[in-house]
Amino acid sequence: MKTFFLSISLVISVLVVQGQSHPSIMLTQKNIEAVRKGIKDYPIMASSYKTVKKDAEKALKSGIEVPTPADGGGGVTHEKHKKNYQQALACGIAYQVTNDERYAKFVKDLLLEYAKQYNTWGRHPKRKQEPGGKIFWQNLNDCVWQVYMIQAYDCVYGALSAADRKKIENDLFANVVKELSEVNGSIFNKVHNHGTWSAAAVGMTGYVCGKKEWVQAALHGSKQDDKGGFLAQLNQLFSPDGYYAEGPYYQRYAILPFMIFAKAIHQYDPKFGIYDFRDGLLKKAVNTALQCTYTNKVFFPLNDAIKDKTYETEEMVYAVDIAYSDMQAGDDLLDIAQQQDRVIISDAGLQVAQAIDAGKTNPFAYKPMWIKDGADGKGGGIGILRSGANADQLAVVMKAGTQGMGHGHFDRLNLLVYDNGTEVFSDYGAVRFLNVETKNGGNYTKENDTWGKQTIAHNTITADQTSHFNGNEKKGEETTPSLVNFTANEKFQVVSAEEKNAYKGVTLWRTAILFTPEGADKALLLDVFSVNSDQPHQYDLPFWYQGHITDLPFPSEMNGKQLPALGTSNGYQHLWLNGTGIPANGKQYITVLNNRRFYTTSFLADTAIRVKLVTLGAQDPNLNLRNEKAFILSQPAATNHTFISITEPHGRNNTVAEVTTGASAAVKELKLVSATKEAVQFRFTYKKKSYTVSIRKNDPGSFLVID
Amino acid sequence: MKTFFLSISLVISVLVVQGQSHPSIMLTQKNIEAVRKGIKDYPIMASSYKTVKKDAEKALKSGIEVPTPADGGGGVTHEKHKKNYQQALACGIAYQVTNDERYAKFVKDLLLEYAKQYNTWGRHPKRKQEPGGKIFWQNLNDCVWQVYMIQAYDCVYGALSAADRKKIENDLFANVVKELSEVNGSIFNKVHNHGTWSAAAVGMTGYVCGKKEWVQAALHGSKQDDKGGFLAQLNQLFSPDGYYAEGPYYQRYAILPFMIFAKAIHQYDPKFGIYDFRDGLLKKAVNTALQCTYTNKVFFPLNDAIKDKTYETEEMVYAVDIAYSDMQAGDDLLDIAQQQDRVIISDAGLQVAQAIDAGKTNPFAYKPMWIKDGADGKGGGIGILRSGANADQLAVVMKAGTQGMGHGHFDRLNLLVYDNGTEVFSDYGAVRFLNVETKNGGNYTKENDTWGKQTIAHNTITADQTSHFNGNEKKGEETTPSLVNFTANEKFQVVSAEEKNAYKGVTLWRTAILFTPEGADKALLLDVFSVNSDQPHQYDLPFWYQGHITDLPFPSEMNGKQLPALGTSNGYQHLWLNGTGIPANGKQYITVLNNRRFYTTSFLADTAIRVKLVTLGAQDPNLNLRNEKAFILSQPAATNHTFISITEPHGRNNTVAEVTTGASAAVKELKLVSATKEAVQFRFTYKKKSYTVSIRKNDPGSFLVID
Repeated sequence: MKTFFLSISLVISVLVVQGQSHPSIMLTQKNIEAVRKGIKDYPIMASSYKTVKKDAEKALKSGIEVPTPADGGGGVTHEKHKKNYQQALACGIAYQVTNDERYAKFVKDLLLEYAKQYNTWGRHPKRKQEPGGKIFWQNLNDCVWQVYMIQAYDCVYGALSAADRKKIENDLFANVVKELSEVNGSIFNKVHNHGTWSAAAVGMTGYVCGKKEWVQAALHGSKQDDKGGFLAQLNQLFSPDGYYAEGPYYQRYAILPFMIFAKAIHQYDPKFGIYDFRDGLLKKAVNTALQCTYTNKVFFPLNDAIKDKTYETEEMVYAVDIAYSDMQAGDDLLDIAQQQDRVIISDAGLQVAQAIDAGKTNPFAYKPMWIKDGADGKGGGIGILRSGANADQLAVVMKAGTQGMGHGHFDRLNLLVYDNGTEVFSDYGAVRFLNVETKNGGNYTKENDTWGKQTIAHNTITADQTSHFNGNEKKGEETTPSLVNFTANEKFQVVSAEEKNAYKGVTLWRTAILFTPEGADKALLLDVFSVNSDQPHQYDLPFWYQGHITDLPFPSEMNGKQLPALGTSNGYQHLWLNGTGIPANGKQYITVLNNRRFYTTSFLADTAIRVKLVTLGAQDPNLNLRNEKAFILSQPAATNHTFISITEPHGRNNTVAEVTTGASAAVKELKLVSATKEAVQFRFTYKKKSYTVSIRKNDPGSFLVID
Repeated sequence: MKTFFLSISLVISVLVVQGQSHPSIMLTQKNIEAVRKGIKDYPIMASSYKTVKKDAEKALKSGIEVPTPADGGGGVTHEKHKKNYQQALACGIAYQVTNDERYAKFVKDLLLEYAKQYNTWGRHPKRKQEPGGKIFWQNLNDCVWQVYMIQAYDCVYGALSAADRKKIENDLFANVVKELSEVNGSIFNKVHNHGTWSAAAVGMTGYVCGKKEWVQAALHGSKQDDKGGFLAQLNQLFSPDGYYAEGPYYQRYAILPFMIFAKAIHQYDPKFGIYDFRDGLLKKAVNTALQCTYTNKVFFPLNDAIKDKTYETEEMVYAVDIAYSDMQAGDDLLDIAQQQDRVIISDAGLQVAQAIDAGKTNPFAYKPMWIKDGADGKGGGIGILRSGANADQLAVVMKAGTQGMGHGHFDRLNLLVYDNGTEVFSDYGAVRFLNVETKNGGNYTKENDTWGKQTIAHNTITADQTSHFNGNEKKGEETTPSLVNFTANEKFQVVSAEEKNAYKGVTLWRTAILFTPEGADKALLLDVFSVNSDQPHQYDLPFWYQGHITDLPFPSEMNGKQLPALGTSNGYQHLWLNGTGIPANGKQYITVLNNRRFYTTSFLADTAIRVKLVTLGAQDPNLNLRNEKAFILSQPAATNHTFISITEPHGRNNTVAEVTTGASAAVKELKLVSATKEAVQFRFTYKKKSYTVSIRKNDPGSFLVID
């Protein structure tokens, strides 16, 4: 093999020389002794290895089982094949650490069994698409399988006979590669996270098996035209700030193939400079992913997202370890590693463990920031405001970026609010029960389209009970909101953005401000949402709150005996109308108790405004929806209108100690001074001191003045 | 003073001699040096004292403020007076520890200010009852105020001039005692937790101020007839097992005046033998209170109960410290003390801290047990089954005791189920927002009567949509369920009880069993609920589940566009009927996903049975109800009927790691063999092995046979 490749090019020769040393991706022959020592010396290495070892032991005990693929996500064969690749990698690592041949034998026997069966299987009987997966219902899972298996193989390579290697490489891996890059070639060449998993699987397999053509295809696409493949994906799926087009939840998922394939490229071909690609894009991507979490570790659930996903996932452990060890990503990443409470047993994990042990950890530096979206950085972005220490942080997220591809929601200028370790105003996320087979096979349910993606499911304006872009994804992809202003200084933080295309003839302009008045413990959230049109429209602005309303001071007509649905389409068909309030003068606020803290939202309301109290759950025959709650500020018909609200976190209701403090809000007398298409001015008092807030769209120098 | 009292009796002379040494309740002159050293030596003492010191510092900073009483619970003056007594005690303790006169001065100035104002106040403007409280809206809070203030006074006694003492004792304490024991004499003499707070306040004040007559009144009631007073309360409010008639939530609350007044009696008059009273009742009461918690520290919310109340409350810290130091309550109490993470800065707290430091801690010994209710132990009881280690325990609670006085619910044979650190089938608890003034002044809301107390709010049978005893508390107090069987052995745990009076002519007989079949990780809950009557009735058995239904395998007609209330009274008016299912043969189960674990309840159903899916929240104009959910097995008309269900915890849905295992239940083929008024036999299979369960009411020797 060596002589064959040596004649080609420097790149390839490097590839082959290193290719003969196994393993050489996450673990390397060169460092294995140091890793072994690290497991002895560093608690985080020790406990991480203990988990790997336990998985490996379980594998040895349970023996080899390769069932004929039959079930969808969460089903028995699905979970078994998943466990197989996880256990194979665990055994591969355990073999490297211990030199115990039993672990290598498990990987060998497992791969030989797959080699024997793989070609006998037809297409997956529950395939989600055509041609679909083979081992799993979707090709994506097959790709993930291969990303793990190739690492396992790399780890035990030295323990295998030439004959076994040949059988595994020819009968299994070559066929898997064909399956991924040819049979499912359209996914392989797609600029999409599925494409990245496919490229990583094929590319890594190419490196380990010394197949140049697989590597080249993975990097540049099947046709070598860079219209697909890893480089195209890196170029097109991330903004210059390292924001991933589908949003944080999928960024978290996609980060693994990006990082591990990059790591493989770097290992086999350091001169390729993959880490420097697009000005150190991958390093930025890891930081951006972490900046898109709240202090409770959970990713902002923009677009389709499973809500309890944290940065503790395996993907993020890989990402953090590699970014720290290979990309000089900074010692505040060690804080995240410590929260993750594990490292990958690898050269990179060792670096992290050593640094933690050396006391280098700094608190993760959450920062207010504007993260540019779009491959060229011109697709709007995500605005994040943060106030307070990590232990009790008020955070505000404004989504003003691209549609987010197939997983995008129609949520232009959506606002998420967090405080005190929890959600205050939240996004529903995806309507999906991940891996629960009785819930549509663990896949998105149909309510993900009828509810999750609809505008009314988000904390932004719906006009005329119709979603942005009429729910047309393609239309949504064509344009983006634009940044009006982002400023973070000592006095305040502000993000302001404008959306002109969501509704024909309607301009949406939203400004979110964090401002701490004199004598306040916490910042206030000032939210100014102007909508301008020549024609009258109905404007609904929901606040999807967590917690329980404890003060509804204005008269409300409640539907006590019969609960009607609020509408018939665009998500409104899923809302029960609990009641309608008429916010009388001087009583224009609602207080919610959430995680033992009060949140009072004071708002402006003219005589036409109604407050609709709603609960999610109508038209839900399969009980797929959580019964979340909102109050909706509803303006029945207006051309121009400015919603202004101030949300104030206050007080404490400790039911264990039976102490309540600060139960009344301090913000009073919210009053509009003036509102035009270009400028808004309003007043309020906080503890008797009066503040005037002036916002001028076209005056970047003094966009926001509070005095 | 000394000569005056010495002529009376030994008891009184002891009282007076010790009465002159201050302090001598929780802290004593004798041990204060050891306590000071303990604060230096033991982390739990150090951190506990740090909190006290911080409160004391805050007090010094904020200065003296005694507002004229004006607000209800949670309001500004309410919270200020509460803070005053807490800060006074903190300063009292800080003074003892540091000898710093500034702390003593705060207590002195505060008490003198109260002494000046107290008599100028009329009845509380927001009083909850007549005559009501003076400092607070209810007399109860005034009593609590005095229990704290007298301890604070005791701590700083040595720092006060004779003139100041006289002013405080005569102008303030004597008037407070009069207010408690005379103006509110009916509460003082009541056998009820309010009476105990009153007795403790008056009695402790009597000891500290050397007023024999106050002590005597507190012990034996105003008329010295032992129809009221502390001894009557001890005699009548607790069962011989130390179970408190109002239930665990109020037991937790009442335990403080019981324990601290007992401690005072013991300090001033050890020969009285209060700790030995009723065979060591108070020690049993502390253990029983703790046995009435789940492993998440929360009290079983039987009767009116705030649901997040844990044993971390101050009352339980006092109780645990005193029980450990004074009553030899066992080293497993140290586990609780460590969970509480604090001790009272006191002689008792010191003992606890020393023992923890000496490594004596054992895990708290949660045990399956039958706790007798009723002053004579003949009022039924509470059955508790527990399976598994404290870290992951399946617990079942059956309420088969007395009504529970004014805070009692109509919930005969109610079942609560916990697992995996959380509620599985839950009790709503009280409809109350404690200390939230905008919610009915922080008091019980009217839905506590219309919902919280009603039978349908509980996991037990409602006949004919009418609550037990027709919702008549007095009727409920007249009778109790009776124990049929309680057994806990290696093979199973069972509690079985019978209720003959809740409905005229209807016998309710419920048997709950924990049984671990071969090959199971966790126990199954077998629930057999027989109802027998000569007349046909509608029987509704709800399962108030936490979590989200993930499998509803039988056809259900859902109310998608209009949601009707299920009924018009007895709690049914608060239920929205989401849908009605017809549980077809072979599909008689429901699976719920809760805290990442699945729970499948398989149940028997004949062709008449319907499954009603309901959500709480109808007729709730003030948004006082949480929107909890239940499935109700509803038998429209039957004379005799046996509900049998098996609830199986299984599998795991880890959304962070994206792993699902054991998503299908293993219990199958649940079949009734026979059911009479005296015996029930049924079968089921678990992982292909078949089990027959036989229950024979009148055969105590082999009440339950599983084979």
